[in-house]
Amino acid sequence: MDKLRNNWFTESCEMWPGSTFSFEVKEVLHSEKSQYQDIDVYDTASLGRVLVLDGIIQCTQKDEFSYQEMISFLPLCCHRNPEKVLIVGGGDGGVAREVEIDAKVIEVSKKYLPFMAVGFESKKLTLHVGDGFEFMKNHSQEFDVIITDSSDPVGPAISLFQENYFALMKSALRPGGMVCSQAGTIWNDLELVTNTLSFCRNQFPSAAYGYASVPTYPSGQIGFVIGSLEENKKFDSPLLTFNKEDEQTMNLRYYNSD
Amino acid sequence: MDKLRNNWFTESCEMWPGSTFSFEVKEVLHSEKSQYQDIDVYDTASLGRVLVLDGIIQCTQKDEFSYQEMISFLPLCCHRNPEKVLIVGGGDGGVAREVEIDAKVIEVSKKYLPFMAVGFESKKLTLHVGDGFEFMKNHSQEFDVIITDSSDPVGPAISLFQENYFALMKSALRPGGMVCSQAGTIWNDLELVTNTLSFCRNQFPSAAYGYASVPTYPSGQIGFVIGSLEENKKFDSPLLTFNKEDEQTMNLRYYNSD
Repeated sequence: MDKLRNNWFTESCEMWPGSTFSFEVKEVLHSEKSQYQDIDVYDTASLGRVLVLDGIIQCTQKDEFSYQEMISFLPLCCHRNPEKVLIVGGGDGGVAREVEIDAKVIEVSKKYLPFMAVGFESKKLTLHVGDGFEFMKNHSQEFDVIITDSSDPVGPAISLFQENYFALMKSALRPGGMVCSQAGTIWNDLELVTNTLSFCRNQFPSAAYGYASVPTYPSGQIGFVIGSLEENKKFDSPLLTFNKEDEQTMNLRYYNSD
Repeated sequence: MDKLRNNWFTESCEMWPGSTFSFEVKEVLHSEKSQYQDIDVYDTASLGRVLVLDGIIQCTQKDEFSYQEMISFLPLCCHRNPEKVLIVGGGDGGVAREVEIDAKVIEVSKKYLPFMAVGFESKKLTLHVGDGFEFMKNHSQEFDVIITDSSDPVGPAISLFQENYFALMKSALRPGGMVCSQAGTIWNDLELVTNTLSFCRNQFPSAAYGYASVPTYPSGQIGFVIGSLEENKKFDSPLLTFNKEDEQTMNLRYYNSD
């Protein structure tokens, strides 16, 4: 495998030149080039199983929960009554209803990341494989919450970081609806964060930036923009809070009432 | 330089096996072996100047401010009237009064990290070069705040993570005094964090763990334990808050009233 050197994988990307993160690989579980991207799954010495798309780490068994929990519960716990939820991206299967452009990511995740892909087993799930942008155009006033769990804005996901995507999401929401989108990190992509947040602010009366600590993402944190059709929404005062028992039942490891 | 390969420096340590962080070096500014440790300063392609002790990144020009501001203002803004402050470690010069074991670190920082070592110019500063542990034994009921800005617990700093160090700090504090110590990250050193916090809890009626996002530290975050001689201290409700004007005057880039 020329992607590895002495059994170490090194992540490098034009988005963060001059520094790299590397991990030791015990076994290459999967490696293919799909219609959209390179898909690799590694079993590693220190991070458990790792999904890599186009050379960029998407999630590791060690720390995926902090990102998944935050991007899901930030909006879900702020909404008054989230009945119908759309997940765009999220092909690794962390959640409940989704549009993923690359069916191969879903297939590989089910096979090699079963601890994450449990979402695909849910009876509440309707799975669509296609372009989230196109999907949105055909759905109007339909969802309470739209979560955009995208990869970075250098490959198939680039259109999900544009203002017209936020406009489309707005039109697909029911009254009181909310959106939450992966929005990069302040340390590497300050311009991206600023732009994405301003796109969200332009379309939604309430908008904010939040973040989670995820060691294996560049700079160790990743942010979200969150928008609501309600005015003066207090995103840091969720309407639904979990007690310790809830947190245990749901096996939460990062998101908590603090 | 055998510390570099093709002008890249790779940080690796027994504390976090199986994954590494690397950065591109433009110029080696300094490299020596002091009485206590290896001291290297690099000018880098993406992080500005970087201080490395015994192969471990201590601070980079890109992100040092988030750590320095948090370890200083977490305790200083919670104390009623911090008049006399002791900094143990902190040889890079971020703050105001200190005991550093390795005079070479101070010398190198003054020369190569002038943007950080401004603290050494302060008239309020009395500098002691020696062992923080020994220094503390000779000072009783003297300080309002003690900040322990140490390196990791694998070299000269190991004694600063033990319970008897917290007991010594307690005896060196005036009534109402507070301590704040570097305490590792939950992602790599959960046992260290748990132990350090329990040492602090055993000695102080109020204690808590907080953290800052620092991309170039392993896992991208680093934590602090903070202890107070006051009971029921609310560390998340500081007594002193800065307004936007204060934040600008003090050139704050991370710590803020949110």
